[in-house]
Amino acid sequence: MRSGTPGPSKVVAPKTRLAVGVVFIGTLIYSMATGDKPPSKEVPPSGGIQLEAPSIAERDNLSKRESGITPSSPMRLRMEAFIKENQQEIVRALEAVDGKRFQQDTWERPNGGGGITCVLQDGNVFEKAGVNVSVVYGSLPRAAISKMRANHKALDLDVESLEFFAAGLSLVLHPHNPMAPTVHFNYRYFETANTDGSTNAWWFGGGTDLTPSYLFDEDVIHFHRTIKEACDAHDKDYYSRFKRWCDEYFSVKHRSETRGVGGIFFDDLDESEKDQESLFAFVQTCLGSFLPSYLPLIERRKDMPFTDREKQWQQLRRGRYVEFNLVHDRGTAFGLNTPGARIESILMSLPLTARWQYQHEPEKGSREERLVNVLKKPVEWV
Amino acid sequence: MRSGTPGPSKVVAPKTRLAVGVVFIGTLIYSMATGDKPPSKEVPPSGGIQLEAPSIAERDNLSKRESGITPSSPMRLRMEAFIKENQQEIVRALEAVDGKRFQQDTWERPNGGGGITCVLQDGNVFEKAGVNVSVVYGSLPRAAISKMRANHKALDLDVESLEFFAAGLSLVLHPHNPMAPTVHFNYRYFETANTDGSTNAWWFGGGTDLTPSYLFDEDVIHFHRTIKEACDAHDKDYYSRFKRWCDEYFSVKHRSETRGVGGIFFDDLDESEKDQESLFAFVQTCLGSFLPSYLPLIERRKDMPFTDREKQWQQLRRGRYVEFNLVHDRGTAFGLNTPGARIESILMSLPLTARWQYQHEPEKGSREERLVNVLKKPVEWV
Repeated sequence: MRSGTPGPSKVVAPKTRLAVGVVFIGTLIYSMATGDKPPSKEVPPSGGIQLEAPSIAERDNLSKRESGITPSSPMRLRMEAFIKENQQEIVRALEAVDGKRFQQDTWERPNGGGGITCVLQDGNVFEKAGVNVSVVYGSLPRAAISKMRANHKALDLDVESLEFFAAGLSLVLHPHNPMAPTVHFNYRYFETANTDGSTNAWWFGGGTDLTPSYLFDEDVIHFHRTIKEACDAHDKDYYSRFKRWCDEYFSVKHRSETRGVGGIFFDDLDESEKDQESLFAFVQTCLGSFLPSYLPLIERRKDMPFTDREKQWQQLRRGRYVEFNLVHDRGTAFGLNTPGARIESILMSLPLTARWQYQHEPEKGSREERLVNVLKKPVEWV
Repeated sequence: MRSGTPGPSKVVAPKTRLAVGVVFIGTLIYSMATGDKPPSKEVPPSGGIQLEAPSIAERDNLSKRESGITPSSPMRLRMEAFIKENQQEIVRALEAVDGKRFQQDTWERPNGGGGITCVLQDGNVFEKAGVNVSVVYGSLPRAAISKMRANHKALDLDVESLEFFAAGLSLVLHPHNPMAPTVHFNYRYFETANTDGSTNAWWFGGGTDLTPSYLFDEDVIHFHRTIKEACDAHDKDYYSRFKRWCDEYFSVKHRSETRGVGGIFFDDLDESEKDQESLFAFVQTCLGSFLPSYLPLIERRKDMPFTDREKQWQQLRRGRYVEFNLVHDRGTAFGLNTPGARIESILMSLPLTARWQYQHEPEKGSREERLVNVLKKPVEWV
């Protein structure tokens, strides 16, 4: 799979690895970058087992054991540590709101990396809440490299494959009460490595969006204002750029409506945007703004009275959420098309219950109609 | 779009038509044939309005008005008449079972064709039942022709575009009672026309499959036996060929399980298989076997007692049905990606309600586990 000089002296010895397994993980990133289905499994010409230099997974494991994680550790390790801390902090805060505990599952990937999936199902406040960390080490085939290069000039085209690292934290909360909005975020870091283990290309991506069944303007304004403040602290253009990108991305195209009332979305933020430390700081601020953006909303709405008709409208909106996630979301598509992916972690984003009703039309002048109008024509909230 | 000699003398006059509208319908069939998303809208080099010979839609309308539909009418008109009759017969039979009436919506396509969508929602027996006829006249661009040619050698490669006709009847029934199975069928006819209006290539496709939440072997055996008898009356190889094709097609790949316990599925049956009359007769027998294959099952199961836990299992299985239809079904994908398609008719196949539960595992030795085992390894039922 890889050739070139062996790694730096720190590393103990080259290691035997099943090259074919690595290609599977490579296809995962291929689809993420292109939106295509992964190519069929490729077996390297020599087939079977190959001798390889130590992988970045092995280097990272050694580095963690030897010196722990400090501000001078590689970004891979700092991002992983950062999202794992935040996962636990967010899980604790949500448990305090709900009164019920999350189920925590830790899983590993055969060729490096793994994740922690935290799910709270049928809680007191949340119908379903998922907070998922995943860390992937793999190898990117040449076809994927040349496609990704459109956005990342640093990518080396003169190699057969590149090792990569990807780490992300994602969250989806579906509350019981139809007055309380569904919310989602995902923040991720991606890196490719040179054969000597040094960083080749890297970028950050992420975003957050709010999906109410009933509009409370003050909630949406609070959510957007909190995100805007996070963005403004780093770049005065970010909020408007990434708000527009969010409205475009979270679009249920076949319904000509957005999934919800938006938020921000960004991808491929690399050195052509800002230096790595600045972008990491931006992502940290974004993630840090999640609890302040959402907790006041859930506190205000979780115990509001509602009718059966309003619950049913929420269920129909949940159906649209499922349509977006299964038909249009690239992240879900790449996961479902990745052999060996953990399906339960990918589909934790789906609501516990959903509904599809033939030709349901909101009444003229109703609150339901007002929501649909906003979804058909996104609003500037702040 | 089209060139060549004008149509036969029957036709009154060449007609002005917006060529750009026709391309939209062309993309519909393009995706059906290839599984790809439709190409972006193409405007013919001359742009705008073109003079054209009368379309097959116009010929067919004239022929219906002048002589009605007889055994010597073109297959297009016979298939359309056949599926419309069957839709009404099936709707009447299902209304007799349910006690509630279907809502019937008739709709037209701007460039020829249209459909009748019949839906019964929240009935006494059926949570949701949809029976849909659609008839499409359109134009197939060259890229689509060359892709389709792999299966149909008769397709003319020396033209810029071909007029086509497609007509189909589809049905999905989701009963309330978790002991009563969901059932689906679709039978369709496709034809392309030469510039003089004569038939260029044609083929039939279709199939039916059963999706129980709880297995009753006698039900599955009855369903498969009825279909097998329909197949055997035409060709002793059909049942085993089309049963295997069904297990392959209705596969929820990311779950490594089939959608249900199968049935039959076939496509591209043209003159290389049998003559047109024989294949039409086969499709007629298949469609005619639907009520006998399903009515005894729904009568036996619709009033069976069930527990909340069993209802919840049905809801989880409905979630898998949604996953198949939105992630893997080509028919649904082609519909959702077709600009101007009638989304409500396409998504009538989704259940009224569905459920996703994180890491639900059926109990060892339970009836739920037995179903999952059968879905992981399809069974020969007859």
